[in-house]
Amino acid sequence: MLLQANEGSTSMMMKLYYTVGTCALAAHLALEEAGADYEAVRVDIRNGENLKPEFLAINPKGAVPVLVTERGVLTENPAILAYIAQRFPDKRLLPLDDPFDYAKALAFNSYLCSTIHPHHSHRLRGKRWAEDPAALTEMARMVPQNLTKCFSLIEAGLGAGPWVLGEQFSVCDAYLFTVANWLEGDAVDARQFPKVHTIRERVRMRPSLQHVLSIWRAVQPPAS
Amino acid sequence: MLLQANEGSTSMMMKLYYTVGTCALAAHLALEEAGADYEAVRVDIRNGENLKPEFLAINPKGAVPVLVTERGVLTENPAILAYIAQRFPDKRLLPLDDPFDYAKALAFNSYLCSTIHPHHSHRLRGKRWAEDPAALTEMARMVPQNLTKCFSLIEAGLGAGPWVLGEQFSVCDAYLFTVANWLEGDAVDARQFPKVHTIRERVRMRPSLQHVLSIWRAVQPPAS
Repeated sequence: MLLQANEGSTSMMMKLYYTVGTCALAAHLALEEAGADYEAVRVDIRNGENLKPEFLAINPKGAVPVLVTERGVLTENPAILAYIAQRFPDKRLLPLDDPFDYAKALAFNSYLCSTIHPHHSHRLRGKRWAEDPAALTEMARMVPQNLTKCFSLIEAGLGAGPWVLGEQFSVCDAYLFTVANWLEGDAVDARQFPKVHTIRERVRMRPSLQHVLSIWRAVQPPAS
Repeated sequence: MLLQANEGSTSMMMKLYYTVGTCALAAHLALEEAGADYEAVRVDIRNGENLKPEFLAINPKGAVPVLVTERGVLTENPAILAYIAQRFPDKRLLPLDDPFDYAKALAFNSYLCSTIHPHHSHRLRGKRWAEDPAALTEMARMVPQNLTKCFSLIEAGLGAGPWVLGEQFSVCDAYLFTVANWLEGDAVDARQFPKVHTIRERVRMRPSLQHVLSIWRAVQPPAS
């Protein structure tokens, strides 16, 4: 087993570690949509909280989202989203009863984490891949065209809707909303992808999103 | 539904599209381990076959692996691996009966596709993120240190083995073998990660790998 964490009572409340502005939004939205009983714990990356020993003890990768369950720690959005969908099957957050449809949903989420997210990161987190300032500028220059190409592919692959997988809202919508919300900051006009844009607007109207944003926007008391 | 493809008879043989030297090895290995009835179709990226209309009609992303099933097309390794494990449950290629253990396996595969693979790609496929030659050189320079950091995290997260998930060989081993096999080409000595190195050596001994490599090494007849 990987990244073993505290085993505890099965009545333990789940904890989601998130950072404002990050892809942890997808996991947070999924927990709300599931009606889960959980505690949201903010991790301030600007203060380096994600690299402090207390957090690295939970996730050695120093990244969010992290979902702590009574069985241990889960990381990586596609895995956390799948787990939430399986833990709350009545919410139909993934097509759990059809291996092919389920794999299509996994493929959708996998593309977001393996291709869209790294492209996005080359604008503000380019230091992962280069230190030279000219190289950072060059990488940032290509972000809009890369994301335009990727979202064109997503747009072309979407069906009649109203959601990513069809009639039923799923964690794919939560994840698509999260990464599509970065487009304007990356100088890409989301309206050139009408289906993506419409799904984004639909998610924006959901009470789950409003509730998560109220948590994210709340001023946190200073750490004692 | 996304990327809808040919619906056909349920007796249709699956097809795996692969390119020699790519991460399609993980999916190919999984099919062999599953004892699946499938046809392997080579896609020569050097000749640009992945960008020809015939292939883009199957996968508009122009990437491998692609698994064509009687229900349609699947892309993205984590999704293809999960599908193969679900289609051949007796082979226990993923812990399908335990949502938490299953999510841990998904998280493992997700880290390989979203973090390890992009780091690796910055050496030979850097043109995805920069065109300036100096930027390409700078990105390639950082590949060994990035992969060393990532594989150190994987190593620290592995348990007693003998496999990634414990007693049972899984698609995680097929995927780890695939990306760990790139280390030497990226100027990283895999022996500094003893558990990863040992799993790699164990996979290397499996008949499934030997069979896949015999297919990959076979000289293909020239296209007519």
